[in-house]
Amino acid sequence: MSRRFDLHTQVTRSEAGLAAELRDTWRIGPAVNGGYQLAVACRAALLELGVDDVVNVSAYFISPTAAGPATLDVEVIKRGRTSSLAQVRIVQDGRERVRALVLGGSLAAFTGPEHHTESAPELPPPDACVGVPGPLQREIDMRFDPSTAAFLRGQTSDRAEHRAWVRLADAGAPDVLALVTFADVLPPTTFNVFGMTSWVPTLELTVQIRRRPAPGWVRAHVITRHISAGHLEEDCSLWDEAGQLVALSRQRAMLLAPAT
Amino acid sequence: MSRRFDLHTQVTRSEAGLAAELRDTWRIGPAVNGGYQLAVACRAALLELGVDDVVNVSAYFISPTAAGPATLDVEVIKRGRTSSLAQVRIVQDGRERVRALVLGGSLAAFTGPEHHTESAPELPPPDACVGVPGPLQREIDMRFDPSTAAFLRGQTSDRAEHRAWVRLADAGAPDVLALVTFADVLPPTTFNVFGMTSWVPTLELTVQIRRRPAPGWVRAHVITRHISAGHLEEDCSLWDEAGQLVALSRQRAMLLAPAT
Repeated sequence: MSRRFDLHTQVTRSEAGLAAELRDTWRIGPAVNGGYQLAVACRAALLELGVDDVVNVSAYFISPTAAGPATLDVEVIKRGRTSSLAQVRIVQDGRERVRALVLGGSLAAFTGPEHHTESAPELPPPDACVGVPGPLQREIDMRFDPSTAAFLRGQTSDRAEHRAWVRLADAGAPDVLALVTFADVLPPTTFNVFGMTSWVPTLELTVQIRRRPAPGWVRAHVITRHISAGHLEEDCSLWDEAGQLVALSRQRAMLLAPAT
Repeated sequence: MSRRFDLHTQVTRSEAGLAAELRDTWRIGPAVNGGYQLAVACRAALLELGVDDVVNVSAYFISPTAAGPATLDVEVIKRGRTSSLAQVRIVQDGRERVRALVLGGSLAAFTGPEHHTESAPELPPPDACVGVPGPLQREIDMRFDPSTAAFLRGQTSDRAEHRAWVRLADAGAPDVLALVTFADVLPPTTFNVFGMTSWVPTLELTVQIRRRPAPGWVRAHVITRHISAGHLEEDCSLWDEAGQLVALSRQRAMLLAPAT
């Protein structure tokens, strides 16, 4: 476990409700990373639902969140036998910034068949991959497969895709909340197609957690198949060191100011 | 346009708020089809937001909805220049059945690059595909590519996938709300792997609308790559007769009582 990540996603209860301190090291430009915000929102939901794991979460990003204090308004929608649903609103300066629906439960209690037609992405070992200095480097250690990292060489490609190793920068073991964060920490896939000058705000992000990750590195595969009128999806799959699929995510984003 | 679909998704305003009549012909067993419910919820959101198109919608299915009257509680979260956000709760008998977040706007106003690495699924013409009698046959005309329709021959396959033509049964031109419905009308992909006895309730469904569809048939490609502990995704892409991508959707579902 990562004490640092645990501290950064801490949710405290006061008379005014639940609150968190969004840390400056999770900032990209003026706004705080969406995956990190969502991990904080999920932690508030788990606290109010009294369950262990995020099963599925969907969030709409309404306006950029800044580093600093935020309140977390949680509404418990349903308490069920196998899963429970909550809504979380992240509020700063009296304005709602994010609205999330969080389905929580106990992943270990799920039973049923396994059937996979795709396996973990093949990529060179972390030390043979390319590290990248970036705004989140104090928090996230990312190593890119050189064959999908045209943007790191100042080049472009026709494939809006990344394959990378990801872990918390303190090398703490990932948990379910870290997976929620990892689903939105890689650079936009469009960097490979249009260069690094594009700004790609997330409109909506949904993360499906499938199992608790084993300790160690997580492998991420992110791919965009369709950019239409500047709107795109990013489909991400996350795999643990044991080679198991641990999460799937998809986001809808907008491509602004692409390099031409 | 389809007058019948328009009538079935009609939302009326009374002193008690917005209401709809969920039609019996959209029932599958005791519950009403999720895609149809979501189209009704979206129509209520568009009405309150005063915008033309659904851009993106995410819904969590809390408890099964029955045919009959339903109320639609809409909260306008944000009115923006390019898009606006609303929350819709579908309520029956005083109980919340569905909670949806609907991002609305004007698709025609979106501008930006096009970049596609996948094209419309290849499948034989509708008359060479296989029609299927099913619970929704009075509302939806579906024609399956024989090569992905093992379940229609009482067989199983290792590919949890469908390719099919879809249109409203009255052959009315599809609109954005019809796309929301089409994203959840095909039989579960798991029918091809485990047989037709499995019950696959949707926990969450997100639909990204990319453009208004041309009149005519819509091509659907639905694929499940990962079933883990009985939980699965269904990724659907919808293409219009002009060969353009019109929507992407992903749902998380549970596989109950699989045939073994």
